[in-house]
This record gives sequence, structure tokens and C-alpha cells, in this order.
Amino acid sequence: MGEKNTLLEAFRQTNYRVVGHGNREIRMLKEALKEFDGDEESDIYGAGNIIEDFQNKLSEYLGKEAAVFFPSGTMAQQIALRIWCDHKGLKRVAYHPLCHLEIHEEDGLKELHHIEPILLADKDSVIQLDDIVNMKEDISCLLLELPQREIGGQLPDYETLEAISAYCREKGIKLHLDGARLFEILPFYKRSAAEVCRLFDSVYVSFYKGIGGIAGAILAGDEAFIKESKVWKRRHGGDLISLYPYIISADYFLTQRLDKMGQYYEGAKELAQLFNSCHAVSTKPMEPVSNMFHVHFNAPKEQLESNLIAIYEETGIGLTGYINETENGCTYEAAIGDQYALIPKENLQNIFRKLDERLKEINVRN
Amino acid sequence: MGEKNTLLEAFRQTNYRVVGHGNREIRMLKEALKEFDGDEESDIYGAGNIIEDFQNKLSEYLGKEAAVFFPSGTMAQQIALRIWCDHKGLKRVAYHPLCHLEIHEEDGLKELHHIEPILLADKDSVIQLDDIVNMKEDISCLLLELPQREIGGQLPDYETLEAISAYCREKGIKLHLDGARLFEILPFYKRSAAEVCRLFDSVYVSFYKGIGGIAGAILAGDEAFIKESKVWKRRHGGDLISLYPYIISADYFLTQRLDKMGQYYEGAKELAQLFNSCHAVSTKPMEPVSNMFHVHFNAPKEQLESNLIAIYEETGIGLTGYINETENGCTYEAAIGDQYALIPKENLQNIFRKLDERLKEINVRN
Repeated sequence: MGEKNTLLEAFRQTNYRVVGHGNREIRMLKEALKEFDGDEESDIYGAGNIIEDFQNKLSEYLGKEAAVFFPSGTMAQQIALRIWCDHKGLKRVAYHPLCHLEIHEEDGLKELHHIEPILLADKDSVIQLDDIVNMKEDISCLLLELPQREIGGQLPDYETLEAISAYCREKGIKLHLDGARLFEILPFYKRSAAEVCRLFDSVYVSFYKGIGGIAGAILAGDEAFIKESKVWKRRHGGDLISLYPYIISADYFLTQRLDKMGQYYEGAKELAQLFNSCHAVSTKPMEPVSNMFHVHFNAPKEQLESNLIAIYEETGIGLTGYINETENGCTYEAAIGDQYALIPKENLQNIFRKLDERLKEINVRN
Repeated sequence: MGEKNTLLEAFRQTNYRVVGHGNREIRMLKEALKEFDGDEESDIYGAGNIIEDFQNKLSEYLGKEAAVFFPSGTMAQQIALRIWCDHKGLKRVAYHPLCHLEIHEEDGLKELHHIEPILLADKDSVIQLDDIVNMKEDISCLLLELPQREIGGQLPDYETLEAISAYCREKGIKLHLDGARLFEILPFYKRSAAEVCRLFDSVYVSFYKGIGGIAGAILAGDEAFIKESKVWKRRHGGDLISLYPYIISADYFLTQRLDKMGQYYEGAKELAQLFNSCHAVSTKPMEPVSNMFHVHFNAPKEQLESNLIAIYEETGIGLTGYINETENGCTYEAAIGDQYALIPKENLQNIFRKLDERLKEINVRN
């Protein structure tokens, strides 16, 4: 008797996948290095052409005076908030309850920087202007994450963003952008990165989400802010003697994929519609505003998994390699990348017909 | 009229160099990646074969229960000291006045961890047992750096090391090894890494000094300590989604160079002797106990530089690309690597004859 596939194994065996750029394999680095002879000199503790050129390229793209390359966004953002708090002499900031710094960093902001976060807004919604206006406490800095990843990738409308920016400026509150997925929202906002970043005092972007690089981040802002961030980068242990493996690959995949964000956004809208047309499935947001969304199944996890495995084996197309249980059923996060466009349209329609049928059956039985 | 070379430019134009492994170029990474097809999966946030295998390999080599790969020693060591301080409930440690944490980390230990360091010993000597016994304050942890890099790479004798280890164990003081250059001292001590590390509760080693890799560090210790270090690694922003570029190259160059440490040590002794045979030059230590030593010239910087440039141009052999001014003249740090063995012995004798002659002349004129 053969062993049954797990959902992950079945997903890995598919020929086509609706999500992602493909497996994160070493070939990504080999590919990024191809155009280099090998003679090129490593950066050295933050200096040298490779790092300085990339930092200049990004500061220009983001419309900021300066930028610094960090090994991680976790490091970059704790440091950004710390600098703003030091400037104001007040160790208090505000952000969404599901902010990365609140739930994914083992409380680094508190343990290392002793900064107190005020949690704004309902955890199921994005932050609105009223949430900030109604804040009792004074803060040094407000962090906005665009889009709000943990709730499916939701965005405030642009007027709200502008109003929040103006209000913060008026009140002497610094505004920091968690732009882990900034590139991915520009098609929806129909604005350039520099335009959006103009609303913010400091900005962080990532190179391994929609861009699909290996690792690394950029922190951008005014000259004084960036100069200070380099001191903290050393303190945190992030001023590596050589960061070029991440810089070179960030540059390579940025060049490859920056102009595909519109394609990913359209793909996300299309895929979300296919999910929403199925029995017992809904997406959040209903209509994506980036390359991502969350899929919510009103079905028990185990039953859904075995049905998905069957669909993958029948069609050779994978929807996801994992499913998380929720109160009402289960969920997963879809992020559209290069893989989506490779799927023939009829096959896509077919897989959702099968999914719909199977979900109907699950509901009839339950 | 042609522009005169700077010392660095002249050094870079030499065919042979007494120090180092060669320029830090991108080819180092391309070389390390050659044996990989590209199908191999990246590590992911500290998990996966690439990272786990390497961590196991190193913990075994160092004779410790467990190990974790860090992007930098700066991060690894602040975290090691923090954990030991938390265990004892006392935020005080002790180390040498020229400890890396004291002079090269923008006070990260104090700014992030609020740990107070007691500075032991004269800054020109290594720490001795009496320095610890005579300490007034209680501490959680003592950090020993072997060899003491900032004073030329000096070592206590092994009996002293054993006595310090026993004393700390008796007094409930944890002992941490700054082993940035641990591999390099094993030939002198004639002991394995595991033997030396047995004296210590925690150990840090580096992969881009004598090993000549690209970046990265290992922190090793008991299971509980290592488990805690992973939480702090995340807090510090060091739990990168992918660390394999550094891990793969660390492994590659470790395999290449670990067994050459004896050769580098012998080369260092030989080269130091050549320097010491010259007029107005001395090395510290007089006889190296690792692959490194500091060269002290009793001569003014500018005059020495122009003489060195002339020697490089005459012989095609480079001694150093920089010289730092001191009270009594100038100095540079020599670290023997792969390059030294490539120099024909007669050429080496020749260059020191020329150096000796020129130094005699400088002294006659001054």
C-alpha cells in the first residue's frame, strides 16, 4: 500500500502552481551571479561600489535623500522606530495589532529598544484617520504597513493615506512605511513609489516577497536619519563585512520583476474571482489591491486537504502547500508571482470547477 | 608627469603579497557555489538541511551540544553575554579593554542590552588569573578572546587558561570564548578545538578571518543556551529567511583551509623573524602564536610609505596596503594566509634586505 501524499508533497509534485515564483533554490543565487566575472570587489562594512550604487539606486527610486541596505527588515524597522523615538525623546509608537514588530519578532522592539507600542484599530481592519486622531497618548512615530498583510493585504484608500500623512506632519508625529510589499501596491494606487513615499518620513522595502530575491531590505529617509541608522546597524550586528550576495540578487530580481507587478495584480484579481465563484470559498479582500489575498474555506481542514490532494493529482495544478485551521474552517495566503501566468486558462477554469464540485459535496455531507 | 601610486595602489599592483588570501572578490562566492547544481533548497528561517547540517558539523567539531549560525559575530557575542547575564540575574560581565564589544560595535552591548563591562588587565597584556581573582565586582560572564587581536595576537599560556576556567567554574562565572581566530591558535596550543572549547561554556567562531570565507559566525554551547540564542537572533533581526550564501561559503573555505592553519602559523613565525632582523622594526608578539602579528616600524609614516612603494615596485612583492601612525612610528597588522607560500624564498630574503637598507637610511637622516 503506497503512502498517501501530504498536501505539501502533492503540491510540490504539481507541474503548475497558482502562487509564487517557484521553489527557493540555490539556482536563484547562481543565476544572479552569472553576469559577474568574479573580479568585482566585495563591499566592505557598508562601503564600496556594489552596496553604494544599490543604495543610491533605491533612494532615488523611493524619492528619499539616502538609503542603507540591511540584512533584514526586522532590523531595519526596529532601528527606524528607535531613531524617531530618540529624536522626540519619547519611547512610544503606534501600529496595527498585527504589525510584524508585534507578532513576528519575539518582541525585539520591546526587549532591545524598550519602546512601547500603542495598538491601533480593530485587528480585522486597516488603520483609519480617526484611529490616530482619537489616540490618547502622544507618540513619536506611526508605522503604517501597506498593504496590511495579516488581514489578506488590505489598503486604506489613497485619500486616507494623504490625510494621515498630513495629520502626522501637523502633530509632529513621524510616519514610517512598512513597505515590505510596497512594489506590489503601486498598480492599485496608480502612483509611483516616490509619490507614495513622499507621504512618509522613512520607508522600508523588502526584496524577497513579490520581488522574489534571496534576502535583504532597504531603509530610506533623510541623510541624518540614514547616518544614524548605520550606527544602529552596527550595534545590531548587521554591518556585515560583505552583504553583496544579497545585494546582487536583490538588484537582479528587482530588475526582473519590478515591471511585472501590474501583471501579478491582475492575476490576483482573476484568481480571487475564481475562488469567490466557488461554493464555500471567499477571499479577503474580496477584490485584491495587490498581488496577494487570503483564501477562506468554509470546510474542515482534513476533508479539504484530501480533496485538494486529489485535485492536484488529477490536474497537475497546485493551489497551496498548506492550510491553516480557523474558527470557521481554514485559510491560506495566496501571493501571485511568475508561476500564475504559466497556467493555461482552460486548465485553470477546470481546476475551479472541480474545486467547486468537491466543496459542494463536503457541505452536503456536513 | 605620472601620478604617484598610493601605498594601497602599489600594494594592489604587486604580484606577490606576504599577507592574506588575496582580494575579497565575487569569485569567492562563485567558486563555493560550483559544486551545487542549483536544485538544492534554501534554508528557511533557521531550518533546513543546509543550515542544520553545518550547525551540527560545527557543534561536533567544537565539542558542544549545539550550535547556531549567525550572520555576524557582533550579534552572536552580544547575545551570548546577554543570555549568561539573564541566567544569573546580573547585567555585568568582564573582558579586555580592547575587546571587540568594547571598541568595534558602537556600544551595542550597552545600548541594546544595558550590560556593564568591567575592563580587566592592562590594555597591552592578555588577561591573567590574578586579574579575575582580584576583581571586586561580581560578574555573570567573563569573555576571553584568543588570541587577543588588538595587541598583535597574544595568548595566555595554556595552564593559565585552564586555571581561569577552573576558577570561573568554581565561582559560578560563565566563561565565553571569543574565538574569532580560534582555528589559528590550535597549532600553537597543540590541542584540538574541542579540547580548548571544553574550558568554555560558550564559544563563537568566525569564517572570514583565517578561514577566508565571505561572512558569518557560529555560536556554540549547551542545548538550552542555543535554544535561547535563536530567540535573540530573531529579536536582533538576524534570523534571515536565507543564510545559505554565507553557510555554503563558510563550509567551502573551512574545508579548504582548516588544515592549513599549521602552515600559516609557521609562515607567521618565519615572516616575523624576517621583520625582527631588520633595523628599526619589531613585531608583537616577537614570536607569533598564531597566523598574525603586528609590525612596528620606528620610522615616520610618510617616509616609510614612499620607501615601501619603491620596494613594491622594484620587487613585485607587497608587505601591506596601509600603515597606521603610532606614538613611536607606525604599525600594521600582518595575517598570514594562502598568499605567503607563493613567494619564492630568495625573493623574500631580497625584499627584507632592501627594507633593512632603506630603514637604516631613514634613521640616519632622522
